Amino acid sequence: MKVRMSMIGGGEGSFIGPVHRMAARLDGMIDLVSGAFSSDPSVSKVTGLKEGLANERIYDTWQELIKAESQRPAGERPDFVAIVTPNHLHYGPARMALEAGFNVLCDKPLCLSVAEAIDLHETVERTGKLFCLTHNYTGYPMIKKAREMVLGGEIGEIRKVAVEYFQGWLSSPVETTGNRQAEWRADPHRAGIAGTMADIGTHAFNLAEYVTGLETVALSADLHSVLKGRLLDDDGSVLLLFNSGISGTLLASQIALGEENNLSLRVYGDKGSLCWRQMDPNSLKVMWSDKPLQIYRSATPFSTAGISAPLHLRIPAGHPEGFIEAFANLYRNFALNIMAVRENGKHDPLLDYPGINEGVRGMKFLEAVVSSAMNKSLRTAL
Amino acid sequence: MKVRMSMIGGGEGSFIGPVHRMAARLDGMIDLVSGAFSSDPSVSKVTGLKEGLANERIYDTWQELIKAESQRPAGERPDFVAIVTPNHLHYGPARMALEAGFNVLCDKPLCLSVAEAIDLHETVERTGKLFCLTHNYTGYPMIKKAREMVLGGEIGEIRKVAVEYFQGWLSSPVETTGNRQAEWRADPHRAGIAGTMADIGTHAFNLAEYVTGLETVALSADLHSVLKGRLLDDDGSVLLLFNSGISGTLLASQIALGEENNLSLRVYGDKGSLCWRQMDPNSLKVMWSDKPLQIYRSATPFSTAGISAPLHLRIPAGHPEGFIEAFANLYRNFALNIMAVRENGKHDPLLDYPGINEGVRGMKFLEAVVSSAMNKSLRTAL
Amino acid sequence: MKVRMSMIGGGEGSFIGPVHRMAARLDGMIDLVSGAFSSDPSVSKVTGLKEGLANERIYDTWQELIKAESQRPAGERPDFVAIVTPNHLHYGPARMALEAGFNVLCDKPLCLSVAEAIDLHETVERTGKLFCLTHNYTGYPMIKKAREMVLGGEIGEIRKVAVEYFQGWLSSPVETTGNRQAEWRADPHRAGIAGTMADIGTHAFNLAEYVTGLETVALSADLHSVLKGRLLDDDGSVLLLFNSGISGTLLASQIALGEENNLSLRVYGDKGSLCWRQMDPNSLKVMWSDKPLQIYRSATPFSTAGISAPLHLRIPAGHPEGFIEAFANLYRNFALNIMAVRENGKHDPLLDYPGINEGVRGMKFLEAVVSSAMNKSLRTAL
Amino acid sequence: MKVRMSMIGGGEGSFIGPVHRMAARLDGMIDLVSGAFSSDPSVSKVTGLKEGLANERIYDTWQELIKAESQRPAGERPDFVAIVTPNHLHYGPARMALEAGFNVLCDKPLCLSVAEAIDLHETVERTGKLFCLTHNYTGYPMIKKAREMVLGGEIGEIRKVAVEYFQGWLSSPVETTGNRQAEWRADPHRAGIAGTMADIGTHAFNLAEYVTGLETVALSADLHSVLKGRLLDDDGSVLLLFNSGISGTLLASQIALGEENNLSLRVYGDKGSLCWRQMDPNSLKVMWSDKPLQIYRSATPFSTAGISAPLHLRIPAGHPEGFIEAFANLYRNFALNIMAVRENGKHDPLLDYPGINEGVRGMKFLEAVVSSAMNKSLRTAL
Repeated sequence: MKVRMSMIGGGEGSFIGPVHRMAARLDGMIDLVSGAFSSDPSVSKVTGLKEGLANERIYDTWQELIKAESQRPAGERPDFVAIVTPNHLHYGPARMALEAGFNVLCDKPLCLSVAEAIDLHETVERTGKLFCLTHNYTGYPMIKKAREMVLGGEIGEIRKVAVEYFQGWLSSPVETTGNRQAEWRADPHRAGIAGTMADIGTHAFNLAEYVTGLETVALSADLHSVLKGRLLDDDGSVLLLFNSGISGTLLASQIALGEENNLSLRVYGDKGSLCWRQMDPNSLKVMWSDKPLQIYRSATPFSTAGISAPLHLRIPAGHPEGFIEAFANLYRNFALNIMAVRENGKHDPLLDYPGINEGVRGMKFLEAVVSSAMNKSLRTAL
Repeated sequence: MKVRMSMIGGGEGSFIGPVHRMAARLDGMIDLVSGAFSSDPSVSKVTGLKEGLANERIYDTWQELIKAESQRPAGERPDFVAIVTPNHLHYGPARMALEAGFNVLCDKPLCLSVAEAIDLHETVERTGKLFCLTHNYTGYPMIKKAREMVLGGEIGEIRKVAVEYFQGWLSSPVETTGNRQAEWRADPHRAGIAGTMADIGTHAFNLAEYVTGLETVALSADLHSVLKGRLLDDDGSVLLLFNSGISGTLLASQIALGEENNLSLRVYGDKGSLCWRQMDPNSLKVMWSDKPLQIYRSATPFSTAGISAPLHLRIPAGHPEGFIEAFANLYRNFALNIMAVRENGKHDPLLDYPGINEGVRGMKFLEAVVSSAMNKSLRTAL
Repeated sequence: MKVRMSMIGGGEGSFIGPVHRMAARLDGMIDLVSGAFSSDPSVSKVTGLKEGLANERIYDTWQELIKAESQRPAGERPDFVAIVTPNHLHYGPARMALEAGFNVLCDKPLCLSVAEAIDLHETVERTGKLFCLTHNYTGYPMIKKAREMVLGGEIGEIRKVAVEYFQGWLSSPVETTGNRQAEWRADPHRAGIAGTMADIGTHAFNLAEYVTGLETVALSADLHSVLKGRLLDDDGSVLLLFNSGISGTLLASQIALGEENNLSLRVYGDKGSLCWRQMDPNSLKVMWSDKPLQIYRSATPFSTAGISAPLHLRIPAGHPEGFIEAFANLYRNFALNIMAVRENGKHDPLLDYPGINEGVRGMKFLEAVVSSAMNKSLRTAL
Repeated sequence: MKVRMSMIGGGEGSFIGPVHRMAARLDGMIDLVSGAFSSDPSVSKVTGLKEGLANERIYDTWQELIKAESQRPAGERPDFVAIVTPNHLHYGPARMALEAGFNVLCDKPLCLSVAEAIDLHETVERTGKLFCLTHNYTGYPMIKKAREMVLGGEIGEIRKVAVEYFQGWLSSPVETTGNRQAEWRADPHRAGIAGTMADIGTHAFNLAEYVTGLETVALSADLHSVLKGRLLDDDGSVLLLFNSGISGTLLASQIALGEENNLSLRVYGDKGSLCWRQMDPNSLKVMWSDKPLQIYRSATPFSTAGISAPLHLRIPAGHPEGFIEAFANLYRNFALNIMAVRENGKHDPLLDYPGINEGVRGMKFLEAVVSSAMNKSLRTAL
């Protein structure tokens, strides 16, 4: 029995909407049954029809969708609602959907403030519904492997973490020339208190905490609006302090001209070190204190030995799996968890996905970064 | 209106079956409606049920499938039959499906001999049905770009072609230890006259001809069965002569220990040269006579400018697309062509896919390689 | 007429001594004529004899060397003194040699304090002698090219600089187990106020300022002594503010287990961006706003077009030039300048080398980093 | 006591002459004492004076040089003569120098025919002099490591060898436009029976035999003169049969537009496989049957463990050593062997260098390749 999904946002012209739908389709476990795909009802209609939805299950507003769909009979009712709207439209739909009894999958960052995040956290706990936040980079098999290695002590005690996320697509003021993706991201009303840090900094932050199992306890940040007239940051650098006492750095930029989607994570331990780059996602560079450097490669024998990575691979070594497959791992794990709950069963803890806690941490990170950048003490002059 | 697919082969335990199904699902344009997934009816049943098929549309044999499905009413009848069986089970199902009025998508190599290939070619022409041969590597966006550049004269007159396909998975006699993929590939009754050359050499051959637009007119080949007791080649090297008078090399091996799926193509022209590697598929290295080396990258501005590549991309630059996406491009293009025919329309010639001609050429290549390797004149001694 | 060199430091067992001598020998323009190679006279003797020096020109102390050699007749007198000792033995010999009328080449960092640096600067100006500080990474041809591109406006206005220098050789307490290189670097009396920041951070700092032509005006730094018991920093991160108003980051570590000598520089402009990595020194990645990514390669046509890079290349493209060649470029340029002065001529300004100004800036950087790290305001808690 | 060298060829404007001299200088063990640098006496003079030679030891012809230098007193007489002329001027000078009692270092290929090679071989044996043939690529540390691994059985029984050497510098008819390097290489009178195969094919051939310890016993070759009007091959492909019964391929081209100096060697065994690329010479990719892929890196702990590689390294890991350093390893080893003989001592067999046997094999390879290409049986038509 497939899992039924309803979608809010992601209409024609959206980048992330089609990605969510491809990810949901890939493994054949999820059916899209209804949607409110846009604040513009005609866009919603066109998108829904293209997806082959029945006319009556394409809605003009997310409120109508949640209301109507929650009254459907058990066999038709969506198992979860996917929220793929701009940031300011996460909190409302997520809360209403949870209260209406739906499991929720929501794009990141979770919402606009720590206060909203805590409220959603409380709602999830109270309703007992499942919640998935699409920090999709955690879905890569070699990230699963990296986490398993770190938590299993293979690289020893961690001494240093360096995470970086550079893009170049905001190198020119595309938000003023009709690029819809850029438009809302540059608008504080829709994006929230941060620009680049919210859009990609939170991914980097999440990835660092996910792989290392450490928690950031304090930070010192620089934020820049490099392009004149931008209200939100388009570039920033953060010095991190973790709960184990070690330090790290998080660099993020969207004005790094020429960079595509250059997310990388390096974790240095006292027995070994790891380096992973999203644009070459099927390799994990492992440096050791007692043997030559190794490149672990997706699906090759020994490289992905262990429990977690093989659960997130679909095809043999050397046949590149990419972004959509990693994204689909979140959808598939979420669907399997929903099925397990439906059958009163237990799901495999390794079929994990980021949840409401990660959402709260992301918002705490954002508020700390913005606060640090604003209240910065004077720098030391040369 | 989605396109309906029926599948022959690809039951549980198959490698390529699930790949075909993921590829078919990815873009939401194709519905699997029936299947005969295995020569073992119980395996067929389990696979079909997992795919959510109605019980009566899961068949014990491909003959029953073609017969029964061809009698379905128009609104239920499959638009095409996908054949994903071992090589010896391509010709029979393909021919019967074509005669029954189905479009056919078939795995490579096309069949077991040039004679069979010519017969299928004639059948396709006579029935007027569409035929797709899954030389899936032609589905990569940067291969589309490479072909467009070569055919458009950007790199000038071609002087040399070097194609190579190295794998290591047959470095030990896995066909004797329960590996089903290896088992039939090592068996002349099921694989045909060649092993490695049929399995991956034909892919390399097809890729070289596809990108360059050249035709091989003669060749000189070495074939080796490196592992004792193997009846078919597991390694081979071929010197190629093309119709333009230039030469090339095709190297293929499945005993190159440690190699994953290392397919690469290099085309040297008199104005520029191209290098593409399947394991890094979103990059195309372009060397020029009059400017520094460039790396064209999927979906970056200028790199995939032109007509063909953008039609085969789904997500922005730096978000890796891989093997499944390239494979899905064949399915999508085939589906779009079926739709176009259904609507008496014309399809975009750039939404192309390998067809029956490529199948005939592959069989000619295989027979020439085996013949050359057997009748080899004495080598020159040092 | 060759240039005559006298050397202070660099006896048997030193790492950098032999490098300096190979660099000096490579182009056949410099003769080593005398030396005081070690604080241990017997080591000095052995080293000098191995180098084929006359017995009477091998000295027990640098004071004796400078005194005796300055009284040699014109045709025997060294043209310059190379100082390749630990940090605390730079200032004294450099000052005495300058006062004695020698040109001086000195290893980095210049000395132990800004005060000493300013004094040396004044001495250089007063004596009119030539001074070279071996920030050897500026000697790489592709760094020359990068600087020429940036200063020539090819990548537009600079928006962001990221420089990084990671090593792993201090991941274990090698300074306590007989490693002489590590020993003095870990000792504040010989290394000065900083460890990693002095040893490699100053190289990174110099490289960033050299390529961009910008000056750092303020910074905010974290310093860490990751290994217990270390008195000086072995890891640090610095947020930089440049005189043009843009920002940057400088990350340095010697406890990044597995890293070899991983120095990299990225400069992001509004028309293009540059990325260079010392471990692949013959490539310069150039990203553009208006064409596909290019890899400029040493000595290939077009890649090193211009004036500066070709002056620093010795062999054709694809024949890797490395660390010693880059180091030798400093020696050669210094020798050519000495010759030019000797002949009352003018030297080509592109045959440049780091000098006393770079030494002063490095010391200012170090004092600011240490000061910032000590007086750090509280971080923002999450 | 340094080793004294006399040089024949390598005057101003030569590519390889300066490389030889830099290689000879690098380690400070060799003094250039005399030379006949060009068939043009004025060029010879200028070159010699630039090198600081005494006027009377700069000769107009190599015959005069050998005659005069052989009559010098013991303390002045050259220890060896370096021959760095075009191919047709190897045999004569080498033979005369050997007969005059000199050790000889000679550029490759050894001479113009197997007959000449055998004669030189006999002369070397009879005179008892040392002979070095500068197949310089064997001087790279990671090649020493690769050979040690293969001969030590680390990768098991070899199953397949693939060597390749692609350049692009002859993509246009540069031999007609004043390029002196190209001019003599394109002239059968000076280059011999082969072009590309002699110039770089012999390097590839030598590297394959050196690393594997195998001997080629037969081959089948294609040779092409891709550019109209070229009398010698500028491109070729060879299928190799080794004495152990395994096969290999050797591909060489100088019309592969855009390629710099792309020499690579892959050796596939039944326990492991090796891949080395000259343009990234400090890495050796090692693939294993029982653990993840490793990258051995020059001078890193464990990577170059063993006996041979460390003897050929000068600086720490991550400080790139390149072409000149590898070349210098041949000079240094040759000098050490000369010193050992001078002192009636024994030299370390690991301080090896290619010799007269390698020269004979190279000529046998060339004659077999040309013969095979000319007498080629008909290819198999498709």
